[in-house]
Amino acid sequence: MFTGLSAFPLTPLNASGIDEAAFVRLVERLVAAGVDSIGALGSTGNYAYLSVAERARVAQLAVQYAGDTPVMVGIGAVRTRDVLTLAEDAQQAGASAVMLAPVSYQRLSPEEVYGLFEDVTRALSVPLCVYDNPGTTNFTFSDELHGEIAHLPNVASIKIPGVPNDPAEAKARVARLRALIPVHVTIGVSGDAFAALGLNAGCEVWYSAIGGTFPKTMLAITRAAQAGDAEEATRLVERLRPLWQLFSETGGSLRVTAAAAELQGLVESPCLPRPLKAVDGEARQRLAALIDELALA
Amino acid sequence: MFTGLSAFPLTPLNASGIDEAAFVRLVERLVAAGVDSIGALGSTGNYAYLSVAERARVAQLAVQYAGDTPVMVGIGAVRTRDVLTLAEDAQQAGASAVMLAPVSYQRLSPEEVYGLFEDVTRALSVPLCVYDNPGTTNFTFSDELHGEIAHLPNVASIKIPGVPNDPAEAKARVARLRALIPVHVTIGVSGDAFAALGLNAGCEVWYSAIGGTFPKTMLAITRAAQAGDAEEATRLVERLRPLWQLFSETGGSLRVTAAAAELQGLVESPCLPRPLKAVDGEARQRLAALIDELALA
Repeated sequence: MFTGLSAFPLTPLNASGIDEAAFVRLVERLVAAGVDSIGALGSTGNYAYLSVAERARVAQLAVQYAGDTPVMVGIGAVRTRDVLTLAEDAQQAGASAVMLAPVSYQRLSPEEVYGLFEDVTRALSVPLCVYDNPGTTNFTFSDELHGEIAHLPNVASIKIPGVPNDPAEAKARVARLRALIPVHVTIGVSGDAFAALGLNAGCEVWYSAIGGTFPKTMLAITRAAQAGDAEEATRLVERLRPLWQLFSETGGSLRVTAAAAELQGLVESPCLPRPLKAVDGEARQRLAALIDELALA
Repeated sequence: MFTGLSAFPLTPLNASGIDEAAFVRLVERLVAAGVDSIGALGSTGNYAYLSVAERARVAQLAVQYAGDTPVMVGIGAVRTRDVLTLAEDAQQAGASAVMLAPVSYQRLSPEEVYGLFEDVTRALSVPLCVYDNPGTTNFTFSDELHGEIAHLPNVASIKIPGVPNDPAEAKARVARLRALIPVHVTIGVSGDAFAALGLNAGCEVWYSAIGGTFPKTMLAITRAAQAGDAEEATRLVERLRPLWQLFSETGGSLRVTAAAAELQGLVESPCLPRPLKAVDGEARQRLAALIDELALA
C-alpha cells in the first residue's frame, strides 16, 4: 500500500466537535477519485490537536468509509504511552498501517527517537510509516538514524519532508537514503511542491496534504510520474506553482488546504481547531481565484 | 507572587503513573526551603506529557501541600479548547496563578498566539504568566507582541527564556521589554544559567527549573540579587558553571534535573515519561560528583 498517491484528508471541526459527516464526505471523495491509500490523522488531519478518544473515532470512520482503499492512521504523540494506546486503537479500528512522527515538547535526542520507534514497532501487528517532519517535530533525522529505524520490525515506508530542488540532487538524496534501508521499505515524498521532483527521483509514493482535498489533480501528477513521464509530472506540478507559493507564504499547507475546503463548501467554516486559523483576507481571495483558474475543484 | 524565586518541581513518574508521594515530598521541600512561589506543571513538571486528568490531580496536590506558598500551574496545550479546560481545572484546584506557553504542533503565527492569549485571559479569574520558551514551542515572541499580550486582562508576568551574556546588554534587553508592558507586569528570567544576569538586570523573579530540586542553593542566589549584591549573586551562579555546562551538553535542564533527583533518592528511577531519558553514563557520573562538590543537596 505504500506506493502511488496517499491522500491526507482534513479532520474538519464544527461547533459541536468533529464534523463527522464532512469527514466521511472527504473520505468518500478520495475513494471515488481512486487514490492508492488514505492517510487519516496526518498533520493535515490535525492529529496532534485531538484527544485519544476523538482519534479512535476518526480512525473508525476512515476505515469504515474507505472500503477497499487502505487506510494509514497517524499515531504520533509526545508520550510513548499515548502512542501505544493510539496504535492499539488504530489497529482495533482496522487500519492497514500506522504513521509515526517523533512529536516532541522537549527536543528529542536521536537515542530517544530510536527508543520510541523500538518501543512502538515491537507492539505493532500492522506496518508503520516513519514520518519525518522537522517543521512540526523539531527533530531532524540523519540518514543513518533512518537506516537504523528502517531495520526495526514492521517498518514499511519513510515519509520524507521534501527533496532538493535540482533533479540530479534529488535523485542523489533518495539514492543515499535508499542505500541505508531494507529493499522492502519504500520512500515517500511530502511537501506537495516537491511531488514531481520526489517521484521522478525514485520515491514510490507521494504523501499529499492537498491530495486529501483535490485528489483528481494530484492523481494526474502521480500517474504521469508512475508512467515514467517525468516531464509531464513536472509540468503538472509547476502549473500549481501559485498554490505552492501560497503555502510557503502562510506557514505551510494546512491553513491553505483548510481554507480551500471551506471555500468549496466541503467543510464548515472555521474547520480548524483554535488557535489555528485558516488563511483569510487577501490570501483567501487569491486562493479562491486560484481554485477556479487552476481548475482544482 | 511574581517576585523572588519561583521553583519548578518535577512531576515524577513511577511504574504505576504519577508518583504522587514523591511529588508531594518535592513540594514540601520547596515550602520548607521558603521559596516565594511554586511553578507546578512547568516544563520541568512535564506538563506537555500528562493527560488533562493527570494535570488536574497534580494541580490539586501542589496546592494542597504548598500551604501558604502560592502555586502557579502550567496550562499550556496545542489546542485552545484544552487550555481552557486546564485553566478551569487549575482554578478549581485553588491555583494562585496560571502559566501559558504557546505550545504548538503547527508553528503558530503572531496573530494566532495573540488570539490564544485573548481567548484564555478572557476566561480567567486568576493572574497569568506568559511563558516564552522558543526551544519547546517553536515560537519566537517579538517584544511588540509581548507588549500587546501584556495589556490583556489578568496578565501579571512574563517568563523570558534568558538574557544576553553581557550585563549591560542584559539590562538594555529587560529595559526594552519593560518599556512596552504595563507597570504591574513583572519580568522573570529563566534558563537557570542566566539567573544572576537576569535578576541583576532588573528581572523581579527567577523562574527556576533546578530550583525545584535544589531550592536552598537557588534561594541564596535570589536573595543576594534582591539585596542588591549583584557581585555575590553572580559569584554564586558562576560557582555552578559545571552544572550549566551539563545542561547545555544534554539538551537542557530537564534530563539533568531528573537525574539529580533520581541520584538523590528524591524520586524513583526512571522518573521521566518515555521517550524522554534522564542523563546516563558518563554525564550521570559527572552529575553525581557535581552534586557533592557543589554541595547542592
